[in-house]
Amino acid sequence: MPSITSIKTQDVRFPTSLELDGSDAVNVDPDYSAAYVVIRTDAGDEGHGFVFSCGRGNEILTAAIDAYARLLLGRDIDELIYDLGGASKLLIHDSQLRWLGPEKGVTQMACGALVSALWDIRARRENKPLWLLLSEMTPEELVSVVDFTHIRDALSPEEALDILRAGQAGKEERIAALKADGFPAYTTSPGWLGYSDEKLVRLSKEAAADGFSMIKLKVGGDINDDRRRMALAREAVGDLPIAIDANQRWEVSEAIEWVNQLAEFNPYWIEEPTSTDDILGHADIRKGVAPVRVATGEAVASRIIFKQLLQAGAIDVLQLDSTRVGGVSENIAILLLAAKFGVPVCPHAGGVGLCELVQHFSFFDYAVVGRSQENRMIEFVDHLHEHFAEPVRIVGGRYAAPVLPGTGAEMYAASRARWEFPDGAGWQEVGNRAAVTGASLAAAGTGR
Amino acid sequence: MPSITSIKTQDVRFPTSLELDGSDAVNVDPDYSAAYVVIRTDAGDEGHGFVFSCGRGNEILTAAIDAYARLLLGRDIDELIYDLGGASKLLIHDSQLRWLGPEKGVTQMACGALVSALWDIRARRENKPLWLLLSEMTPEELVSVVDFTHIRDALSPEEALDILRAGQAGKEERIAALKADGFPAYTTSPGWLGYSDEKLVRLSKEAAADGFSMIKLKVGGDINDDRRRMALAREAVGDLPIAIDANQRWEVSEAIEWVNQLAEFNPYWIEEPTSTDDILGHADIRKGVAPVRVATGEAVASRIIFKQLLQAGAIDVLQLDSTRVGGVSENIAILLLAAKFGVPVCPHAGGVGLCELVQHFSFFDYAVVGRSQENRMIEFVDHLHEHFAEPVRIVGGRYAAPVLPGTGAEMYAASRARWEFPDGAGWQEVGNRAAVTGASLAAAGTGR
Repeated sequence: MPSITSIKTQDVRFPTSLELDGSDAVNVDPDYSAAYVVIRTDAGDEGHGFVFSCGRGNEILTAAIDAYARLLLGRDIDELIYDLGGASKLLIHDSQLRWLGPEKGVTQMACGALVSALWDIRARRENKPLWLLLSEMTPEELVSVVDFTHIRDALSPEEALDILRAGQAGKEERIAALKADGFPAYTTSPGWLGYSDEKLVRLSKEAAADGFSMIKLKVGGDINDDRRRMALAREAVGDLPIAIDANQRWEVSEAIEWVNQLAEFNPYWIEEPTSTDDILGHADIRKGVAPVRVATGEAVASRIIFKQLLQAGAIDVLQLDSTRVGGVSENIAILLLAAKFGVPVCPHAGGVGLCELVQHFSFFDYAVVGRSQENRMIEFVDHLHEHFAEPVRIVGGRYAAPVLPGTGAEMYAASRARWEFPDGAGWQEVGNRAAVTGASLAAAGTGR
Repeated sequence: MPSITSIKTQDVRFPTSLELDGSDAVNVDPDYSAAYVVIRTDAGDEGHGFVFSCGRGNEILTAAIDAYARLLLGRDIDELIYDLGGASKLLIHDSQLRWLGPEKGVTQMACGALVSALWDIRARRENKPLWLLLSEMTPEELVSVVDFTHIRDALSPEEALDILRAGQAGKEERIAALKADGFPAYTTSPGWLGYSDEKLVRLSKEAAADGFSMIKLKVGGDINDDRRRMALAREAVGDLPIAIDANQRWEVSEAIEWVNQLAEFNPYWIEEPTSTDDILGHADIRKGVAPVRVATGEAVASRIIFKQLLQAGAIDVLQLDSTRVGGVSENIAILLLAAKFGVPVCPHAGGVGLCELVQHFSFFDYAVVGRSQENRMIEFVDHLHEHFAEPVRIVGGRYAAPVLPGTGAEMYAASRARWEFPDGAGWQEVGNRAAVTGASLAAAGTGR
């Protein structure tokens, strides 16, 4: 039998904190990073996966991937990739490792990287990009990959099957439309807190001219700054939707007050107004800031928390994240939950590689699950795409359909080697530059 | 200034899976383990802390403690231990590491071990056991150690201060009572799923004779087994309360049906009927199984989830866990939340060292916060106490007040060395025995 012969992890970090790309009210100095894994078999398969992180602690993720990798080494690859539901449960429900979550944080993200690397092998075997593989799978196989544990009160396997069967009608037309015209995008590039007003205005105008469906501004540092920046952005883009994002900065009542002070600028949604664990808090905030929509998801730990956000009527927009949860399989569960509750999915992206991964979920969602582009768009941030085997392509403010087989996770080996932390050549150079410019080594993630 | 000069971690595991101690419907084969840390200063301070785990993956926890330790090395110890709220925030809100939770799973537990090790140094400096240190602190200092982020809608600093100030009245009498008579305990020792009926009955009778306030049975494997075992236990202990514990095994509706099938045996509480992340599910279950109480907490990731369980009226009993959350500081927040909502705290214990740690919280709770022993008791399981510098003492079915300075975390260096994984002498011997008896090396946690 063909079996898994090696599972190798790499701690890859990019020194983005030196430029203040990605700065917000909570993530003040991220070094966009990937805890990267490659699974190889003696049949020549190669599957890539990673977890995105913000720098420090990326080595905890690689240690976690290594721990779960021991459960996969030596196993029959065909058994795993043709029973991806079983493969996922083997990892996520391991009787000893489960204590470390359960199903949240570092361990869930590590499982997700491995599960997604198995999906990568499956998609390469079938010579399809992930979104097309998923779109062409039978409803029965899709249901078989989903773990319904602790969500059955909101979504039964039978209901999931009904959603997916209904999604077969008109599927070929939607797939053709995706290949021809792609999927709407919005951009966060103008709105980082660390950018000057001039840069904010310039990038906002560029985003509108480029055809993006929306721009997004980080808020939550200082209300006067936020009002000034919102006014500038509104003037720059006219009627184009502007979302705002507080990155969990506020208490519940504070969120309501703050958003209401920005209401005159007509924000399209408020993202992460408070802790994403706070389901009841989000429900209160949604009532308090209507008609401004409430969005969250990039830090939501599992389908179980999403289930409750939907049950409680706490969100208007679900922001699925590709590497926060248990990989491709759990993201399918989350798409099905969103469809069941009729809430649009606008995935989180940015960081490193998240755009490359997450587009597949929106494409699949449109083809078979949610079946609409109305109020749907994928986040786009223009960072670090050049490191990927198939960088995202934005055409007229829309994501173009990815075509290479696989999940989109593959980062060039040369990029991984150059930015491997702490010994890659890139880090050697940055370490020197950081010393010259006086930038903090700790802030650059080298604070060992 | 006296500063932190070394922070050393150890991966300590005990091969408890060989005996099926600690077996339940989910944790079928735990190897009770501690990701152990010792903080040392150049002033001669030594602070101990650990995270409990079930074996595999304990090395992820030590890697996480190492990652956070870099934020503490070289710092002024006095600044940390006399501003433990600030020390806690320094770790938990680190701008890059925060992404890996936030505030949940591996990273939160790792922060907790370090925060608690700092508390251990503080308590040793003041020559008091933790519970007495806390009981004698001013309300103002106690409030200063609590992180109110994302719980202010349920508990403001002012309300916390009111609770603690009210707790000063009669405090000396309650402390004297704790020193004289200790605090009630219940025991889970009879009820592991892996035990025979004969052992269940024998241990249940012993527990009743020993004066424990309650016994607890693991359930959720098979309903017919559960009914038979409940009947046997009820016959063995008469009117003594019997709690049942499903370790998150069920879906919401399944929990309600299962518990109602055991209702005739009058269970005192049902513990962890479903995912502890499922706040709304717990609320539904509580309605569906009344008058049986609903209890949870050992897997609750943070004060933010506890806040919502209380706000939603989802639990009757709050089972604080000493190493699941952000250490002593976050557990103080949880005790205050429970007091605010009038819900009794019955801490989770067992595993390795959890009894030694958690007793301090119940003693402090009685002295100053909850101020009652009614419906309160601390879990007791008779495993592995001999490895601790101050093993718990049970007298007449009650925890006797700990007297040694510190948090109770200190495990003997000889025990740590013997059971260090995978190279300690104990593991060398067990590895051999496991090979002889055919016990799975993977199940014993050696599946590297």
